[in-house]
Amino acid sequence: MTSTLDPLPALVQLQQDVSSTVSAMRAATPLVHNITNLVVMHTTANALLAVGASPIMAHAEEELPEMLRFAAALVLNIGTLDTRWIAAMRLAGDLARQYDLPAVLDPVGAGASALRTETACTLLETARPAVLRGNASEIMAVAGTHAASRGVDSLCGSNAALEAARTLALRYGCVVSVSGEQDLITDGRMLLRIGGGSPLMTRVTGMGCTSSAITAACLAGARKAGCSALSGAAAGMAIMAEAGECAARHCAGPGSFLIHFLDSLATLTPADAAKHLIAAEPLC
Amino acid sequence: MTSTLDPLPALVQLQQDVSSTVSAMRAATPLVHNITNLVVMHTTANALLAVGASPIMAHAEEELPEMLRFAAALVLNIGTLDTRWIAAMRLAGDLARQYDLPAVLDPVGAGASALRTETACTLLETARPAVLRGNASEIMAVAGTHAASRGVDSLCGSNAALEAARTLALRYGCVVSVSGEQDLITDGRMLLRIGGGSPLMTRVTGMGCTSSAITAACLAGARKAGCSALSGAAAGMAIMAEAGECAARHCAGPGSFLIHFLDSLATLTPADAAKHLIAAEPLC
Amino acid sequence: MTSTLDPLPALVQLQQDVSSTVSAMRAATPLVHNITNLVVMHTTANALLAVGASPIMAHAEEELPEMLRFAAALVLNIGTLDTRWIAAMRLAGDLARQYDLPAVLDPVGAGASALRTETACTLLETARPAVLRGNASEIMAVAGTHAASRGVDSLCGSNAALEAARTLALRYGCVVSVSGEQDLITDGRMLLRIGGGSPLMTRVTGMGCTSSAITAACLAGARKAGCSALSGAAAGMAIMAEAGECAARHCAGPGSFLIHFLDSLATLTPADAAKHLIAAEPLC
Repeated sequence: MTSTLDPLPALVQLQQDVSSTVSAMRAATPLVHNITNLVVMHTTANALLAVGASPIMAHAEEELPEMLRFAAALVLNIGTLDTRWIAAMRLAGDLARQYDLPAVLDPVGAGASALRTETACTLLETARPAVLRGNASEIMAVAGTHAASRGVDSLCGSNAALEAARTLALRYGCVVSVSGEQDLITDGRMLLRIGGGSPLMTRVTGMGCTSSAITAACLAGARKAGCSALSGAAAGMAIMAEAGECAARHCAGPGSFLIHFLDSLATLTPADAAKHLIAAEPLC
Repeated sequence: MTSTLDPLPALVQLQQDVSSTVSAMRAATPLVHNITNLVVMHTTANALLAVGASPIMAHAEEELPEMLRFAAALVLNIGTLDTRWIAAMRLAGDLARQYDLPAVLDPVGAGASALRTETACTLLETARPAVLRGNASEIMAVAGTHAASRGVDSLCGSNAALEAARTLALRYGCVVSVSGEQDLITDGRMLLRIGGGSPLMTRVTGMGCTSSAITAACLAGARKAGCSALSGAAAGMAIMAEAGECAARHCAGPGSFLIHFLDSLATLTPADAAKHLIAAEPLC
Repeated sequence: MTSTLDPLPALVQLQQDVSSTVSAMRAATPLVHNITNLVVMHTTANALLAVGASPIMAHAEEELPEMLRFAAALVLNIGTLDTRWIAAMRLAGDLARQYDLPAVLDPVGAGASALRTETACTLLETARPAVLRGNASEIMAVAGTHAASRGVDSLCGSNAALEAARTLALRYGCVVSVSGEQDLITDGRMLLRIGGGSPLMTRVTGMGCTSSAITAACLAGARKAGCSALSGAAAGMAIMAEAGECAARHCAGPGSFLIHFLDSLATLTPADAAKHLIAAEPLC
């Protein structure tokens, strides 16, 4: 007799869910509404188009109630926040909750300033995103744990944030996705690990922001496929790992990496992505 | 005896005008002033440089009266509009009219929100752009016709917008350029068709916005060459079709498509572009 | 007996300083804080990552006092200035002075509007940047000299700005770096010349802005290496010249140029850069 929590069957089931999620996302070409930072808008939009989703960027409060009616998922990214953008993100978060729209919160640079930490915590509280996705320092800062950061870069591996991720997941009923050499994803009960990718991903701007946007597209896909937000979050990071690994094999440096990365997003198969989910275990 | 409206001679004459327009644009390296959206600024600037024009991006109302004195054409693009940018676009539109500067209005997402539709209509009324360039849904929304859209993407082919385009062209004395699998361009009397391009152009962000900017450069070229705004609008879309087709032949996906597209903008000849004007017929 | 001002030894010493500066910059991966324009944010961030530095973009006044504590250098770039961004740049400049943070001011389009000229002059006065970096027209406009410009492009060679550069360097105790076919760099006493690069650098947007950002990274490197701001400014332009020259050898147009340029930033050696410092002579 095998327990349903036996790691191997859980892993196999989740790999299938990741694969179904990616397929369903591509079939639906979901509209992903982004209120994101000024540095990565262009890359984010191109990554969403390449992977098979459809990006919208709009931040005027006057039109958010209408624009979000079209959306299948929302991304809130505080990378270049200021008073006006915070207000737009607050409203969009409220609307997403009202419209039952799955949202991803990317707390870029949480811990680096009080404004960032507070804005991230407020949005987590009010928007109730399905997924909180950040690096270890950011997740620890949102959880109120001391974290070593330098500007917007994490100085910790993803494992350092495991306890913070579990706590936040349980407190807010969300999935927490921690990027790092190995990505950790948890809903507070299961812990998934995504392997692969490439160190070159740290030499190109906006890879974290892109992973948040693709995670949002995959949340829409997971809904279509009847899969969990945990599968959606895993699918997002698995796509990043696969495209990053392919791009690193073919590029000559960080410039050509980004080009190959976008090309790989378009050509990768659901199964290519799913194999990057390398571990699934219950958290005790 | 052949009528001057005989389709074949009209087509040949207009192809020559497109070719002359592209040549004159490159000879003049016109300064194109852009008040455009945050997603595509970078691509737009690079596309203008690649094709042989010179981009300026500036939106501060305090300096617009001075900055627009240098410009040979203006682009107003409402892609990421908000109160402040609308005010800047209003002022720039007024100045362009006062300075007799040819302008292109790109009503990104008109129909997707009241703010977008109203802003586009107001700018069309006040700035009196030489060219209104959008996809079928956007043109139909500006004309007040019901249109199927999804966010900022059109769900209609360009032909669906023909009547809306004709009406707007006659009402505002402008050229309307409708992008789609085949582009339609009309001044209300003649209807031009541009063929070519590639489906990959829908997998890269900002291709529509880029076509508006290149159209603006070509309006400056058309003036230099003594050609009509209709020829300028056709030249803009013909350049896009040629560069898109070349890029699609050489790329491995949407990432490398954009790179080849920019390279092709720099290397294409006026004749390469002109051959994409495939039909010119009077509208009855 | 050789004078210490003998041109050749000065050149050799400065080439060694440029090389040490680049090495020290890479060893330190300095955080470069950018308040820059909306067009080039993405390219600037990628260029800084590629060359071995770490970019931050943040402009909210509430967080600047905290964010700048992490920074090793600051870039102020007025390319798409408006009231709010000017206020952010004013504050960041004041903080940089207070924190003894080396800053680079890029007066994009100075001379093209009163707003730009005045903002550049005010920031030069208040932020006291270590380096003022612009094209000939911009430097001449900041110095109050008549300059021929067209929008944000210079119509003068860098030599035309030599006297303006010398005057500003002596008046403000800064280094002035004038980009052009040959770059001129002076602290008011020594004049350095950087050769190389490629005409294709004028066909890609943001190359000037990128050189300012890389100059900032090199100012941080120069401090680590115990070298002067003059060496830092020279290192920044030498890196640009080397990467531009490499990229031009391998590219097929302006699109692929930018990709090869980023790849070259990552692979160039300190000695590759240093050889582009081709002259060093005392100014009489």
